Amino acid sequence: MTILLSEKVCSACRGDSPPLTTDEIQRALTELSGWSLEVVSGIGQFAKLYKFKNFVDALAFTNTVGELAEEYGHHPALLTEWGKVHVSWWTHKIKGVHENDAIMAAKTEQLFSARFAPDKS
Amino acid sequence: MTILLSEKVCSACRGDSPPLTTDEIQRALTELSGWSLEVVSGIGQFAKLYKFKNFVDALAFTNTVGELAEEYGHHPALLTEWGKVHVSWWTHKIKGVHENDAIMAAKTEQLFSARFAPDKS
Repeated sequence: MTILLSEKVCSACRGDSPPLTTDEIQRALTELSGWSLEVVSGIGQFAKLYKFKNFVDALAFTNTVGELAEEYGHHPALLTEWGKVHVSWWTHKIKGVHENDAIMAAKTEQLFSARFAPDKS
Repeated sequence: MTILLSEKVCSACRGDSPPLTTDEIQRALTELSGWSLEVVSGIGQFAKLYKFKNFVDALAFTNTVGELAEEYGHHPALLTEWGKVHVSWWTHKIKGVHENDAIMAAKTEQLFSARFAPDKS
C-alpha cells in the first residue's frame, strides 16, 4: 500500500540523515502539484509560489504555514509580498531535501487547498 | 529644520514619481541603521536582515511590519525564516526606491526598536 506524503509524519532530522535521491525527489514532485525543486546557493529546496487576492490573505497564509512549522519543529522560508507567498522547504543540517521536506510541502498544499484555494475565499 | 524620515508620511506613489537619486539614497541610508541598498533583478531596494531568538518572534515581527504596510497601503517583501526576517522596501511602479520606501524603512526600524530589540524581549 502506498502511503501519501500528506499522511506521513515529519520526524526529527539528524545531520547524518540521507538527503533524497534524484529519483526520490522526482517521485515526490509527482505528488506535489505546482511544486518544483529550486536550487539556491547550491542547496536544493522544494518550492512553490502561492497567489492571493491581496496582502492580508497572503500574510494569513504565511501565518498558517508558520503554525504548521511550529507544530512539527521544522521551519521553511516564507517570502510574503502583496498577493503572493513563496514557500521553500529544505533541511539545513543536510544542505538539501529530506523526506520531511516533501511531507511538509504536502501538508502546506493541504492547508492551502482547505483554507485558501480560490473557491474557499 | 530637518525632518527625520520616521516623522514623514508615506504618500500614494504615481508611476511618474521620481525615484531617489544616488545622493538621496546615501542620505537616507545615514538615517537607516543597518539598512543597505540591495539590487535585485536590476531594481534597487532598501533592505535589512533582522535577527530574532526563534521562529515565533520572527513571524511576530513579520506581522507587525505587515500591519504597518496595510496602514499605509504600501507593501514590502518579507522573507521569514527561523530567527530572521529580511525586509525589502521598493516601489514597483518606478522599479526603484522612492522617498516613501525610505520612510517605510524608518518606520520599520522604529517598530523593531520599540517592540523587538533584544532588551525588549
